[in-house]
Amino acid sequence: MSLLCVRVKRAKFQGSPDKFNTYVTLKVQNVKSTTVAVRGDQPSWEQDFMFEISRLDLGLSVEVWNKGLIWDTMLGTVWIALKTIRQSDEEGPGEWSTLEAETLMKDDEICGTKNPTPHKILLDTRFELPFDIPEEEARYWTYKLEQINALGADNEYSVQEGSQRTPLPTAAAQCCK
Amino acid sequence: MSLLCVRVKRAKFQGSPDKFNTYVTLKVQNVKSTTVAVRGDQPSWEQDFMFEISRLDLGLSVEVWNKGLIWDTMLGTVWIALKTIRQSDEEGPGEWSTLEAETLMKDDEICGTKNPTPHKILLDTRFELPFDIPEEEARYWTYKLEQINALGADNEYSVQEGSQRTPLPTAAAQCCK
Repeated sequence: MSLLCVRVKRAKFQGSPDKFNTYVTLKVQNVKSTTVAVRGDQPSWEQDFMFEISRLDLGLSVEVWNKGLIWDTMLGTVWIALKTIRQSDEEGPGEWSTLEAETLMKDDEICGTKNPTPHKILLDTRFELPFDIPEEEARYWTYKLEQINALGADNEYSVQEGSQRTPLPTAAAQCCK
Repeated sequence: MSLLCVRVKRAKFQGSPDKFNTYVTLKVQNVKSTTVAVRGDQPSWEQDFMFEISRLDLGLSVEVWNKGLIWDTMLGTVWIALKTIRQSDEEGPGEWSTLEAETLMKDDEICGTKNPTPHKILLDTRFELPFDIPEEEARYWTYKLEQINALGADNEYSVQEGSQRTPLPTAAAQCCK
């Protein structure tokens, strides 16, 4: 088990600034996290996320969506093979990636992207823990993380019952560092 | 151009009710809409969404996600071929679909799902407008819808600047009927 840490830093889009109110989703297998929506052609999210990873043959799917009143429109996507992600306990400056319009599939799994758009995103990705931690410690971390993650349902519920609807899950996901 | 109307009605999940705080995403090509999150093993969303459809050879992807504090986990997915969706100006009782664990792909497009889960979802899908409206009228509707949808960015922005964060886009998307 490894901990994948992703910092969604910022992006540069081509087009009129008032056309963009964008958020980013990160997906690994059947797990997803989402940033808040930020307006403009040079949005800065600077949000950290983490994922438990058990299969290193997969990839991280990054999608940038433009929020609309009725529907959201995808601006582009980036796919990063987990094997290519560095191991480090320190944040880095990140890397700029070109957003592509479409995903490529192999055996029902995403394996890449195609058709570059003029838009770019800056992401810092790293594995926080070494791959070879003892099994018992890995189990402890898995348990601990799942416990923390499950708190989301209760918190969301109590928040929905009250007067405010702060997006707790994404805010609380900023615990990578 | 046709208007696809989807009513996300409710779902039945297997498992402890306090484990679920779920929302549904609807995707057609590069466009997406999302319901609010509802708690429990028998969530009722009863939210309407609509999409402009120009290619009838595609499908509607429905994903059910369980909201967590750090990440969201996919409970299952349904894929509905657009060709199989009825034309009607009236809402129907909907149809129960089994959520499946994985999507099947062909030529980089989703073409189905596999591996059924014990979870089910009730959806009412229909095309609102006849396929053969005059081109000029179709262009008017496309323009009108895009104008309304673009309002989202401005509204979201002004809301983010204030003290409240009501999820405007999904609420306002309830304009199918």
